[in-house]
Amino acid sequence: MKLTVLGCHSASPHENKNPTAQLLDIKGHRFLMDCGEGTQVQLRKAKVSFVHIKHIFISHLHGDHFYGLPGLVSSFRLLGREAPLHIYGPKGIKEALTLLLKLANSWANFPLHFHELESNNSECIFDDDSVTVYTIPLKHRVYTNGFLFAEKEGFRRVNTEAAQAAGIDKSQFRLLELGQDVLVDGVLVKNDSVTHNPHPPKKYAYCSDTAFFPSIVPIIKGADWLYHESTFLQQHADLAHQTQHSTAQEAATIARDANVGRLILGHYSARYKNLDLFTQEAKAIFPNVILAADGAVIS
Amino acid sequence: MKLTVLGCHSASPHENKNPTAQLLDIKGHRFLMDCGEGTQVQLRKAKVSFVHIKHIFISHLHGDHFYGLPGLVSSFRLLGREAPLHIYGPKGIKEALTLLLKLANSWANFPLHFHELESNNSECIFDDDSVTVYTIPLKHRVYTNGFLFAEKEGFRRVNTEAAQAAGIDKSQFRLLELGQDVLVDGVLVKNDSVTHNPHPPKKYAYCSDTAFFPSIVPIIKGADWLYHESTFLQQHADLAHQTQHSTAQEAATIARDANVGRLILGHYSARYKNLDLFTQEAKAIFPNVILAADGAVIS
Repeated sequence: MKLTVLGCHSASPHENKNPTAQLLDIKGHRFLMDCGEGTQVQLRKAKVSFVHIKHIFISHLHGDHFYGLPGLVSSFRLLGREAPLHIYGPKGIKEALTLLLKLANSWANFPLHFHELESNNSECIFDDDSVTVYTIPLKHRVYTNGFLFAEKEGFRRVNTEAAQAAGIDKSQFRLLELGQDVLVDGVLVKNDSVTHNPHPPKKYAYCSDTAFFPSIVPIIKGADWLYHESTFLQQHADLAHQTQHSTAQEAATIARDANVGRLILGHYSARYKNLDLFTQEAKAIFPNVILAADGAVIS
Repeated sequence: MKLTVLGCHSASPHENKNPTAQLLDIKGHRFLMDCGEGTQVQLRKAKVSFVHIKHIFISHLHGDHFYGLPGLVSSFRLLGREAPLHIYGPKGIKEALTLLLKLANSWANFPLHFHELESNNSECIFDDDSVTVYTIPLKHRVYTNGFLFAEKEGFRRVNTEAAQAAGIDKSQFRLLELGQDVLVDGVLVKNDSVTHNPHPPKKYAYCSDTAFFPSIVPIIKGADWLYHESTFLQQHADLAHQTQHSTAQEAATIARDANVGRLILGHYSARYKNLDLFTQEAKAIFPNVILAADGAVIS
């Protein structure tokens, strides 16, 4: 599981402060979360091939999370994309994108599938052999979801040395991965004597933007990583409540109560010059905190 | 007259290659022409105060000329703008922007006036005491206009030394500026003996994007500066014709035939590493050529 932070700042435009977008590499997928203005250039900087992005998850339709999407989709077309693209986001996203592409006479020449969201309950929106994605309904000024990316349990891992010592041929390793015992010269070799347990499946919870909203705790419980917005410090809690954003202390409270492995903060208001204050404030509640930074890769 | 090039590259996304946007300072106005993705950050880099932008002219609704506008308008709101904003662009621009702002629940809290264009003839779309703006209908894959910014003739310029030698009091200088003769101790002083002619009014013609289209020549005749797109070199004339863009040679032909003062090239395809080739190709037809560059200020 690898996270590339493409942008982690709030809406106010500044040189070298990109609005929200993240890319999650998980089990062979490259999931794009949010797409603020300039995301396509941030993807170029991070040397991410556009063609590997097949699923884009938009939390809400505020510009700093969404206004990079029309340009990215247009560029896909310009670059001759043929692979289907799936876009998940609030109801209205299809109408908006369709209108913009129509006005530009640039309708996508690849299959473009919209999955519009309007439920206030967590729901499964993607599922395949390796990963499931659930919405995390958040509390913001407009309809907003976070997203929970959950790996499925992988295969058992063959202890090559032990398996070879037991005389098991490589052609039978696939059976071992699937958890089966195997016969060697008529003798049954128990699976767990020559395999290790699968790596524990990982979970990433992406929560942006939201007021302090403890209802999400059961959904994100035990996630390995939690990205939680912290637009403000506690000294501006009044502004956080007014704009339905969170403080670093509130993000850390969610992280502690959900017993996550690591908290990643971001979406900082431009008013703060010293971002270390976010770490300090959060660490008083929850120890394992890191700050997102544009271009950072977390793995 | 001062031109700030905010972006001058074609649509393909690249680090440090911004899509089209320009800012024209003319007679106290700051006119924004086109607004590709990232324009608001380019304005920040150029240290342009957002509040001074009151008129935005969008040539066409392709993303690399338009997809920075929703974010810019949202930022105006975020920053507490109160001044009215006028947006001139192809029919459809109002519906698109209105939908995006509605979905974000971010309707402008300042007066937002749309001036939708659909004529195929040049028309006057702005006029005040100092400047007139006309459309320049272009030929592209979607409905597209360039814009001609024409200063009005200014006041006569008082020759302070001569005026004082003739005994004219400063309180009468305004009359001189207006072209009137004045009385000094009962003696008539002729205006042209103590004033200079006004500076000749300047004209800027902005033409992006367009195929080679000689119909524009009468409209832009004698402009001091002409920005004309040159996406391609003549070696790719087939691509230029297919995509309805121009080559450097074609842009220079328009400049020569319109007898402009200076040609500014831009909207280069990302395929060209050496932009000097554009200058060379154009200079063979028209000598006074410069290349637009992101961040360049031309005055």
